[in-house]
Amino acid sequence: MADSSGSTKRSVTRFVAQTCERDDDRLAVEEPLEIRIGDEPLAVTMRTPGHDRDLAAGFCFTEGIVRDGDELESVEPCAEADYGNIVAVTLTDEVMSRRAKQIAGARRELYLSSSCGLCGKQSIDKIDQQMDPIRGRFAVTRDTLVQLPDLMRAAQATFAQTGGLHAAAVFSPEGDLKVLREDVGRHNAVDKVIGHQLLLGDVPIDPAVLLVSGRTSFEIMQKAAMAGLAVVCAVSAPSSLAVDFAVRTAMTLVGFLRPGRMNVYHDPGRIVS
Amino acid sequence: MADSSGSTKRSVTRFVAQTCERDDDRLAVEEPLEIRIGDEPLAVTMRTPGHDRDLAAGFCFTEGIVRDGDELESVEPCAEADYGNIVAVTLTDEVMSRRAKQIAGARRELYLSSSCGLCGKQSIDKIDQQMDPIRGRFAVTRDTLVQLPDLMRAAQATFAQTGGLHAAAVFSPEGDLKVLREDVGRHNAVDKVIGHQLLLGDVPIDPAVLLVSGRTSFEIMQKAAMAGLAVVCAVSAPSSLAVDFAVRTAMTLVGFLRPGRMNVYHDPGRIVS
Repeated sequence: MADSSGSTKRSVTRFVAQTCERDDDRLAVEEPLEIRIGDEPLAVTMRTPGHDRDLAAGFCFTEGIVRDGDELESVEPCAEADYGNIVAVTLTDEVMSRRAKQIAGARRELYLSSSCGLCGKQSIDKIDQQMDPIRGRFAVTRDTLVQLPDLMRAAQATFAQTGGLHAAAVFSPEGDLKVLREDVGRHNAVDKVIGHQLLLGDVPIDPAVLLVSGRTSFEIMQKAAMAGLAVVCAVSAPSSLAVDFAVRTAMTLVGFLRPGRMNVYHDPGRIVS
Repeated sequence: MADSSGSTKRSVTRFVAQTCERDDDRLAVEEPLEIRIGDEPLAVTMRTPGHDRDLAAGFCFTEGIVRDGDELESVEPCAEADYGNIVAVTLTDEVMSRRAKQIAGARRELYLSSSCGLCGKQSIDKIDQQMDPIRGRFAVTRDTLVQLPDLMRAAQATFAQTGGLHAAAVFSPEGDLKVLREDVGRHNAVDKVIGHQLLLGDVPIDPAVLLVSGRTSFEIMQKAAMAGLAVVCAVSAPSSLAVDFAVRTAMTLVGFLRPGRMNVYHDPGRIVS
């Protein structure tokens, strides 16, 4: 069984050179979580258990279902489920009626998009257009930024045990850790930190820096932008679309953030000496 | 613009120690691809362009829409689209009518699953139950396995340029590379190699070894099992559910495959000295 740290044991046969021995290994837990709006299933995500309320709240926010924490009446593990893999989100009546209109609109769009030629592009253009440029203007020093990966790694309880977990963390511009979450899915880790701040009433999260392990994709940038996070840093490379998204939304995007060095793909203006 | 290698240039400001210089950097391309069944949108996936037919074919197979390559009448970029981001899949009449029944069944299941308590668990149990144990029994030597990551890396044209692309590769038990595909999404890379073999009429892919960069999750194992791939190796850690899946389906699962060493999480019987 999983313990509360997000890791669990499985037996392993270790082959090293010509030897072989049986052992136990700690692995990152992956389990399905069903997120519901009331009684209706919204999505199933494969996630690392822990902070499921944050994940459900963040998912509802970054998917555009709620616009702020006040629109969430409650976010609770489903009491009838005896294994904790369902979280039920209750929305205010106002949001429920807005959602009914959104769903009807989405059905119309799906119908429209079946005429060939532009819809793939239109849908991606529309995502960009919906996103207003990020307003947050603040300064963060180079020295602060290059220390963040070590601060994040030090706070990652489960990664140290398993070597196999993504993380997302929000820092103040001064480098103070506000929240860190780990998950087998990088997108889940980001939804968890955003959901945590949302439930605290602290969205838009500004001024603040988001740091993710691994790489940055369009999806990560979009989630960060929705939460008002103006500076996104990653330990590894961004995709082309992550950079293009940063350009369109005036976000600062940093890649290959390592001791003493970093690549800034857009808007180095927020980074000072 | 993207070139055919899956990478593209963006400008970057490199901060190293106290210096800073403008440069160009090569990044992995990420763009949306819409996969259609006839005129109907099936899914949009964020992928690295290239081998889109493989991706669409593999996706249709690993999602259970087609059972073999003969069920695909054609897989073609949408001629009306001028930017190559739509692939239209034409299914045989027989498969189209089976699909209509599947969709009707799925709607019923969604309705059923809104009764609380078991559905999340039931859906995951059902996925496992649908999957017959892997039949392929063959032997691969330790020496062959530990060389595969270097062989894959050497064949990865785009990773070398960008440092930011996942890969999946299929090898014979003797260590000969059958196919390698790169993508910003590991799941896409796996769908591409499976789709490539499907279009060649070579599914189930047996005997063969699948190697993926990074980690293994439930999703990767499920795709591999559907394609009959009995041995799955990864450069990094598996999740708990990946191991549990290997146990239930009698697959060999290797993690942390490195020069001279590996961890075998299930069924070391296929690995010989």
